[in-house]
Amino acid sequence: MARFYTWMLRLPRGFRDFPPEIEIVRQRTISAIEEVFRRYGFEPMETSSIELWETVKGKYGQEAENKLLFVFPDFLSKEWLSLRYDLTAPLARYVASHPELPLPFKRYEIGRVWRHEEPQRGRYREFWQCDADIVGSPYPEADAEIINLIDDAISQFGFEIKIRLSDRRILSSILSKMGIDHVQVYRAVDKLDKIGWDGVSRELRDQLKEEEITKIKEIISIKEIEDVEKIGGDEIREVTRNLLEIIDLVNNKSKVVFDMSLVRGLDYYTGPVYEVVLKDQRIGSVAGGGRYDSLIKMYGGKDVPATGASIGVERLIEVGLETGIFKKETALTQAYLISISDKNRDFCWKICKELRDNGIRTAVDLMRRDQRSQREHARKVGIRFLIFVGDKEEKEGMLTVVDSLTGERMYLSVQDTVAEIKKRLKSS
Amino acid sequence: MARFYTWMLRLPRGFRDFPPEIEIVRQRTISAIEEVFRRYGFEPMETSSIELWETVKGKYGQEAENKLLFVFPDFLSKEWLSLRYDLTAPLARYVASHPELPLPFKRYEIGRVWRHEEPQRGRYREFWQCDADIVGSPYPEADAEIINLIDDAISQFGFEIKIRLSDRRILSSILSKMGIDHVQVYRAVDKLDKIGWDGVSRELRDQLKEEEITKIKEIISIKEIEDVEKIGGDEIREVTRNLLEIIDLVNNKSKVVFDMSLVRGLDYYTGPVYEVVLKDQRIGSVAGGGRYDSLIKMYGGKDVPATGASIGVERLIEVGLETGIFKKETALTQAYLISISDKNRDFCWKICKELRDNGIRTAVDLMRRDQRSQREHARKVGIRFLIFVGDKEEKEGMLTVVDSLTGERMYLSVQDTVAEIKKRLKSS
Repeated sequence: MARFYTWMLRLPRGFRDFPPEIEIVRQRTISAIEEVFRRYGFEPMETSSIELWETVKGKYGQEAENKLLFVFPDFLSKEWLSLRYDLTAPLARYVASHPELPLPFKRYEIGRVWRHEEPQRGRYREFWQCDADIVGSPYPEADAEIINLIDDAISQFGFEIKIRLSDRRILSSILSKMGIDHVQVYRAVDKLDKIGWDGVSRELRDQLKEEEITKIKEIISIKEIEDVEKIGGDEIREVTRNLLEIIDLVNNKSKVVFDMSLVRGLDYYTGPVYEVVLKDQRIGSVAGGGRYDSLIKMYGGKDVPATGASIGVERLIEVGLETGIFKKETALTQAYLISISDKNRDFCWKICKELRDNGIRTAVDLMRRDQRSQREHARKVGIRFLIFVGDKEEKEGMLTVVDSLTGERMYLSVQDTVAEIKKRLKSS
Repeated sequence: MARFYTWMLRLPRGFRDFPPEIEIVRQRTISAIEEVFRRYGFEPMETSSIELWETVKGKYGQEAENKLLFVFPDFLSKEWLSLRYDLTAPLARYVASHPELPLPFKRYEIGRVWRHEEPQRGRYREFWQCDADIVGSPYPEADAEIINLIDDAISQFGFEIKIRLSDRRILSSILSKMGIDHVQVYRAVDKLDKIGWDGVSRELRDQLKEEEITKIKEIISIKEIEDVEKIGGDEIREVTRNLLEIIDLVNNKSKVVFDMSLVRGLDYYTGPVYEVVLKDQRIGSVAGGGRYDSLIKMYGGKDVPATGASIGVERLIEVGLETGIFKKETALTQAYLISISDKNRDFCWKICKELRDNGIRTAVDLMRRDQRSQREHARKVGIRFLIFVGDKEEKEGMLTVVDSLTGERMYLSVQDTVAEIKKRLKSS
């Protein structure tokens, strides 16, 4: 390709296409997650990809709003629009504008979200989230249901996971007593995994005294819920009791790790927060969520509790492909009809229709190529069954079928070809 | 809800949310279309939702580019970005940048596209398209395959359709001889359905003489391919022969109507164009496409022929719902566990897990409500099977199952409940 044209072919930085060999894995993974969402009684929903900037303001926190949102003017309406940053705020807006909704409202949404930031290795400006949320319940049952859901959704593939759990109210209650701004501390602590304690202290040093930082570090380092309880105070006791109730309802308790350093990055969380990390993998979390009891109120008059989580399906796929849990597949197409000579084209076209009508994903030559090139094409695309049609086949109304996976060659009627292919696809 | 807040809840004009009762129909329709795409041997792909404005320029035509594209600046890269206008140009860019792709490249993509225009009744600024394209084949086989595909994809639901077919080269060849600009004529003729002949003449009058307009009208009114052939000229003869070859390969020839007034709105079409309209429906087309043999070259050095179509799945759903072909459904969730008293909650939670593990989409109370409210909630959401758990059930390890569709009441073991629900779901 002429070098002159390469600037024409570029995508904006941080954006991607997914060719079939990746898209097939993506679709399979997303479908499997979706099936778990449905099994848990969540209903599908889709929200607008674009929101009014006005309605998004004040929902995610300063950093997200000032830097990470794609915001742009609409020259027709003279309003500022923004590409959605996540699937949670759109849900909250939807719920606030539909006070008639029967609660609990359990919905899932799988879709694109956008972040206006510098792309980095593994970090894109457009990516997919799989969200499940329960709106309406203030009880630990709801948080536990979400935790069980993300456990099932991710573990089904064979990933070994750990579920980190905490509650923002523990830290916030202590910070309130110390007269310290919560958001600022959350933001620093949220970076612990990346920048370590030294980094966190450095971030806090501007605004806090050394003894305050030491105190925060001490609290964050508590590893047992029982030790948190000892800090005392009615609120903290209630929070820890609530956490124990959640854990009691979690199916796989051994996966749960109480971790005070978990605060999560977004401003809207108000209570229990949780995160799924893959064991033996040095990547960050692959799912996370928590309770956001005030977000819906921010959109309207009604105070509606809510909790939910988001699975970062792309990071999951990435690790899955690296570790061999997921395998690339180049084609969904199952059979390819090869006309041995030009004369056999019409018959191929007819058989192709019959196989398709019988539910077999079939391709036929559209390029008027010779036999060798047709075979070569089917091989390149990765189609399993090659079906040869020559004069003999046409005369006898039969097909020569090659299973390229096993190398077997069969001579079958059309009806038997359908049955044989279906049988072989099922058993593999 | 306080009136004060309503501005907070608004979506930008022309954008929508899809609540479960609509989304369930949408997902089912899209899946059925997708299954036909796969049966025809098309592979899935996803492209970036955002393109560089530079790479989009000159692809769609002036009107689309100057008015209908969402274009906005990226403050980090200092480049202009645009939301994708369709799924065809992104495909062309992808193909141009991957010269190693085995041809024909048959891919489908289902996704959102955006149009920066004033929203109207039934016309939105964000909507979904289902596209299937064949890249690499210049032959009528490819066009016929796409026509058969959209026929199957749409007719499977029970819609009665008509396939309008034409070829841009007929008109363009005649216009060339008359020394008239094609694009301007296409744009006017494309509006024929909406503004009638008077409107079209009015649009053309600025630039053309009265006798030229009369001549165009005369040509556009030709109803038989044989009559087009008589106009003569080698190019026109070749075009009509190609059209007849396409029709010869179309499965349902009786649905095809040759219609010279079909030109389609986009600049990139170069040959045969086609459109699916619903019989007895006064809405416009629900699918359309054509050959765009020069588009990929516009992105790169290589000249690659291509043809494809796009199904406007939302218009299809809209008409389907109006005519009763599609039915709204409020829930995918199949069963709801009702604890008769507070004491039965734990058992309900346990049974819920078992039903889910057995593949039944099950919900359980998360609101600590009384029996009546739980039942009421399941009814509102539209969940079919109500499963009651009281002391008797808990003691005997049995469940009281009500099929709210038939009104039947059963007393079953957990295992039998699973089997019975599966049986009933299958047969309905």
